[in-house]
Amino acid sequence: MTVQQTAGAFADRLCQAVEARRSPVVVGLDPVPGRLPRRLVDAVRREEGQSLKAAALCILRFNQLIIDAVADVVPIVKPQIAFFEAYGPWGMEAYAETLRYAASRGLLTLADAKRGDIGSTAAAYAAAFFGPVDALGSPAAAPYPSDALTVNPYFGSEGLAPFITAAARAGAGLFVLVKTSNASAGELQDRQLAGAGSVADRVAELVRDLGRDHVGRRGYSLVGAVVGATYPQDLARLRRAMPEAIILIPGYGAQGGTAADVTAGFAAGGLGALVNASRSILYAYTESYGPDATLQQVADAARAAACAMNSDLAQALQRAGLL
Amino acid sequence: MTVQQTAGAFADRLCQAVEARRSPVVVGLDPVPGRLPRRLVDAVRREEGQSLKAAALCILRFNQLIIDAVADVVPIVKPQIAFFEAYGPWGMEAYAETLRYAASRGLLTLADAKRGDIGSTAAAYAAAFFGPVDALGSPAAAPYPSDALTVNPYFGSEGLAPFITAAARAGAGLFVLVKTSNASAGELQDRQLAGAGSVADRVAELVRDLGRDHVGRRGYSLVGAVVGATYPQDLARLRRAMPEAIILIPGYGAQGGTAADVTAGFAAGGLGALVNASRSILYAYTESYGPDATLQQVADAARAAACAMNSDLAQALQRAGLL
Repeated sequence: MTVQQTAGAFADRLCQAVEARRSPVVVGLDPVPGRLPRRLVDAVRREEGQSLKAAALCILRFNQLIIDAVADVVPIVKPQIAFFEAYGPWGMEAYAETLRYAASRGLLTLADAKRGDIGSTAAAYAAAFFGPVDALGSPAAAPYPSDALTVNPYFGSEGLAPFITAAARAGAGLFVLVKTSNASAGELQDRQLAGAGSVADRVAELVRDLGRDHVGRRGYSLVGAVVGATYPQDLARLRRAMPEAIILIPGYGAQGGTAADVTAGFAAGGLGALVNASRSILYAYTESYGPDATLQQVADAARAAACAMNSDLAQALQRAGLL
Repeated sequence: MTVQQTAGAFADRLCQAVEARRSPVVVGLDPVPGRLPRRLVDAVRREEGQSLKAAALCILRFNQLIIDAVADVVPIVKPQIAFFEAYGPWGMEAYAETLRYAASRGLLTLADAKRGDIGSTAAAYAAAFFGPVDALGSPAAAPYPSDALTVNPYFGSEGLAPFITAAARAGAGLFVLVKTSNASAGELQDRQLAGAGSVADRVAELVRDLGRDHVGRRGYSLVGAVVGATYPQDLARLRRAMPEAIILIPGYGAQGGTAADVTAGFAAGGLGALVNASRSILYAYTESYGPDATLQQVADAARAAACAMNSDLAQALQRAGLL
């Protein structure tokens, strides 16, 4: 284990933020126009009509509302880039602005883009999120400045290396897909290999090996992993297999994972894992106030849902003797 | 095998274009500012300075030059989105414009984005390339209109399904990563499974099964596959395993694959596969004319390289009895 200050900078910042907020919650920003508050959408429609630009503006305003609502109760937000990409360059401008706004409110940012390709292409993707970009001979900052990024391991270590290099230089972090939260995750990831273990276990080895030289002062590496809450037994096994990885756990809430399910991803002190919730926080207003909620009610419902999730997780971690 | 006219529309159009041009060549548009013709870069720098916007404009102008040069000698171009994403929303505007320009010159377009996620997110990605997008209640066209898209299989069939649904509706196609061309591809993809075959073989089964209901009049499915030229033995085996898949073969040229290597990916008539070359076509001018080439020389060199590749492949296919 090599302790490097820059290399582990993201992991160290994250541990600090988790402790300061007493929260391992990631708010996933998955803005879908059809589910946004009517009042917000109507106001934008009056200004901009129905267009990709208008939809992107709605998304940005909604994100800002949610970010303001949760900024002091969670450590990090995770905007899912697919929901911005669908709105073209306007959507990507909203993505960049969402990242900047979250950072300005003191939140860490995790770009959920699941990027992966051969080395030379991976380097270009890494530049988009961590910089620097070659602007005709002059280095420019990343257009989508992020504290961390999700990446896909299918190309192997050569496809992951440029992300690690760029993240180490920027003091940022990565979360490599190991076991995803969806129903068909097992079709590939659970296949047993001829030696021992599954495909996901092999990826976990890769995460452990690639992360070893990039561990921060708190004992966590810049190379983290994604393991779904929907497979708690895998979570326990993969936690042991990757002791230095911070595990991002999707699948809590709307996808069915419970607080008891996710405790297996944590280490002592309630560190070592982050639990994501998207729809159950963003759209909490629909249950409490209905589709015509005021913007204040939308914000209140999101904040209340994030606080309830903090309590739910804290209780489960206490019961498990981890907090 | 179900024959569907819309579902196989991309495969049918592609077969027709390959026959009309007598070319299975994909020109990969991987524009890197540091390798673009000096005269083009200098002209843009005088107008726009050094910025992400200027770099994106360079990329677009270079792509248009290459597209004009090869439009009547190859059937399809493949812009690699990573090289645009690095330039922020300006880069994505250049991406959209590159796709539109290629289509206006009679070329098919393959968006190389390697997207993959859980179902609901995959649907948003699919909308970006195949449409329709929900613009505040009014359906809008895809911001990055493409005839086909590369996708990553790590999430399994539930992650691929929304791409297939959207592609079928739009008459478009998909290329699922099976065996990639890079050096570390085998770390995961070659792992032998406890039953029989490798991870890549399992993905090939998935491609075959998912594609079966989406076969066009020419016998090819909308669900294609990516198999690298750098692994010719895998190519032969995977060709047999996915008889209805069009195989996109990267790795010819700069990455080391030869015309003899790629013949194993083809079926009789010289159909069933596409061979990609990026750097060896885009930057052919540096060898023939050096860094100060005129734009005409850049275009001539790219066209000559594409034509030479067409001949090289035709000869190899003839020797193999496939043409």
